[in-house]
Amino acid sequence: MAIHPVIMCGGAGTRLWPVSNQACPKQFHRLVSDKSVFQETVLRFHGQPGFHPQPVIISNAAYAGLIEDQLAAIGVTPGAILLEPEGRNTAAVAAVAARHLAAMDETALGLLVPSDHFIGRPDAFIDAVREAASAAADGYIATFGIAPGRPETGFGYIQAGERLAGRLQRVAAFKEKPDAATAAGYLASGRYSWNAGIFLFRPETMLTELGHYAPGVLDGASRALAAARTVGARIFLDPAAFAATPSISIDYAVMEHTAHAAVLAPLDCAWNDIGTWTAVAAVSARTATPAPVEIDSSGCLVHVPEGLLVALVGVEDLIVAADGNRLLITRKDRAQDVGAVVKALKDSGRKDWL
Amino acid sequence: MAIHPVIMCGGAGTRLWPVSNQACPKQFHRLVSDKSVFQETVLRFHGQPGFHPQPVIISNAAYAGLIEDQLAAIGVTPGAILLEPEGRNTAAVAAVAARHLAAMDETALGLLVPSDHFIGRPDAFIDAVREAASAAADGYIATFGIAPGRPETGFGYIQAGERLAGRLQRVAAFKEKPDAATAAGYLASGRYSWNAGIFLFRPETMLTELGHYAPGVLDGASRALAAARTVGARIFLDPAAFAATPSISIDYAVMEHTAHAAVLAPLDCAWNDIGTWTAVAAVSARTATPAPVEIDSSGCLVHVPEGLLVALVGVEDLIVAADGNRLLITRKDRAQDVGAVVKALKDSGRKDWL
Repeated sequence: MAIHPVIMCGGAGTRLWPVSNQACPKQFHRLVSDKSVFQETVLRFHGQPGFHPQPVIISNAAYAGLIEDQLAAIGVTPGAILLEPEGRNTAAVAAVAARHLAAMDETALGLLVPSDHFIGRPDAFIDAVREAASAAADGYIATFGIAPGRPETGFGYIQAGERLAGRLQRVAAFKEKPDAATAAGYLASGRYSWNAGIFLFRPETMLTELGHYAPGVLDGASRALAAARTVGARIFLDPAAFAATPSISIDYAVMEHTAHAAVLAPLDCAWNDIGTWTAVAAVSARTATPAPVEIDSSGCLVHVPEGLLVALVGVEDLIVAADGNRLLITRKDRAQDVGAVVKALKDSGRKDWL
Repeated sequence: MAIHPVIMCGGAGTRLWPVSNQACPKQFHRLVSDKSVFQETVLRFHGQPGFHPQPVIISNAAYAGLIEDQLAAIGVTPGAILLEPEGRNTAAVAAVAARHLAAMDETALGLLVPSDHFIGRPDAFIDAVREAASAAADGYIATFGIAPGRPETGFGYIQAGERLAGRLQRVAAFKEKPDAATAAGYLASGRYSWNAGIFLFRPETMLTELGHYAPGVLDGASRALAAARTVGARIFLDPAAFAATPSISIDYAVMEHTAHAAVLAPLDCAWNDIGTWTAVAAVSARTATPAPVEIDSSGCLVHVPEGLLVALVGVEDLIVAADGNRLLITRKDRAQDVGAVVKALKDSGRKDWL
């Protein structure tokens, strides 16, 4: 009963502009180490006993070349590269992945994971996935609840219910991003954890639940896969069928409704969504080359192409990020607003800079 | 009795790093308009009745090509380009200039001016030079006292004495950069003005005063010019003779001692020494192309090469200056410390970045 990593890498993180951009989004960049975040995600599972050595990749067709190049660079052969003509949210992704896995290996477990997160203690994470495998085999869709380190208002939460075994518990409720007071209450109660957006399941379980709660998604995704065009490892989903598939998250479509949701919590694996430059700054082991010159400056993140010398004089807690002919300067406490730059560029028709 | 502009452009302003650098210092950059500061200085006099149409340029030999290119671009032919093998301060410059002019035109007046200052009201400046010409013809070395707009501690001051005529007064004293309390007293008294480092004189007057108060400078500079090598408009001062010339400012060498110092004050011509990025920000009419994207940001100066898009999120009063593979970020109230970057690079042997 191998666990098949299904790595989602079709998104574009606008809050990490300009490094993350349409041509090469966040996950394909060396944000925190000398490998890309996508490569780090793939290698997290590669060679681990119990995990299938050929991951399934699901992404936008625009990134097929990037994906193949980055996999080749780390010596990993994909099981398949499922390519969406456009993003239709995570329920469609889960449906395509479950359909693909079910056809490939009836005994498989699918592990649906984002490719753009940092995990500082990968062994703890792998152990948790293994622990959750029995529940998944028993027909649960297992989620992973990150031990909350602070009353964060930027994440969704999972409320744990009845204990199943070990750290596995039924899900009492999924909670959307809370306000500060609610988040503080969640933290104090000990019953809530951060929703990392990771799912472990038998393909049949996922297909059945989608059939109950999101039949339109299941139908559209199934037809898009059935009519797909295959070129080597690339599986191009049928554009017409996929366009007709409802765009909805797997949380809204299935997880908030199913009686088969479990959560493994607390998971303490130094998880970080690296969703903003401030989050990147917190975990990056990358250093700019040449080293910046800092005069009376501290706490700044400098993420610029090699060969650009940055000098900082009398500044604190700034983010300096550059890529090609684009340069961002912001404060660490404003990094969540970088998406506004992308919006402003879009709104003013300056699409070449996205 | 033509006034011959003698434009000094051999210096390098390290506080405007990285745009101002060894290869191309401050005065040769388009800091405040679509012309370089040097070009603006040349054009300030060009075509003005009473001013010789062919300025004398005095600079470091390293910048001969830059000077010729920038003069050609504005259609100005130099009278001479006097080239120093190394900088020996302003007394040597004044001596070379006076010696050169005396040989060229006995009736000339020499107007020794820095090339790296901004003058917002050039007509007011030209009028002041014309007004000072009679005093210069009478044997004074006329200086120009800028009406002080604030108790600035970064400039030297000129204390006015007995009135000669109009705005022309004898100099009572030259004062070095004062502390804040002293500067406030200067401002309140109405007798002090900023020393702009501009001098108008008959060449014979300057040579006579140098002979009295700085005979070593006069001797070294005279021999460097006598032994100079001429190639077209370029006059290369003799390296050995020039190296033996004492390095001292014209203020210390002559102005503080001579009985023939006059000051035209107050001169109100929107003068700015553009010595720091903050000063540049105050007068620049230059806009970055493409226009920066500013989200909740204000008061920032963006001085970067054309084609670099800068986005600012939640920052105020920053200086962002880039040139080639170098980027500076500082605050407006720390701009006077940018020279520390150049010093740090020198001290760590990273001379390629200067």
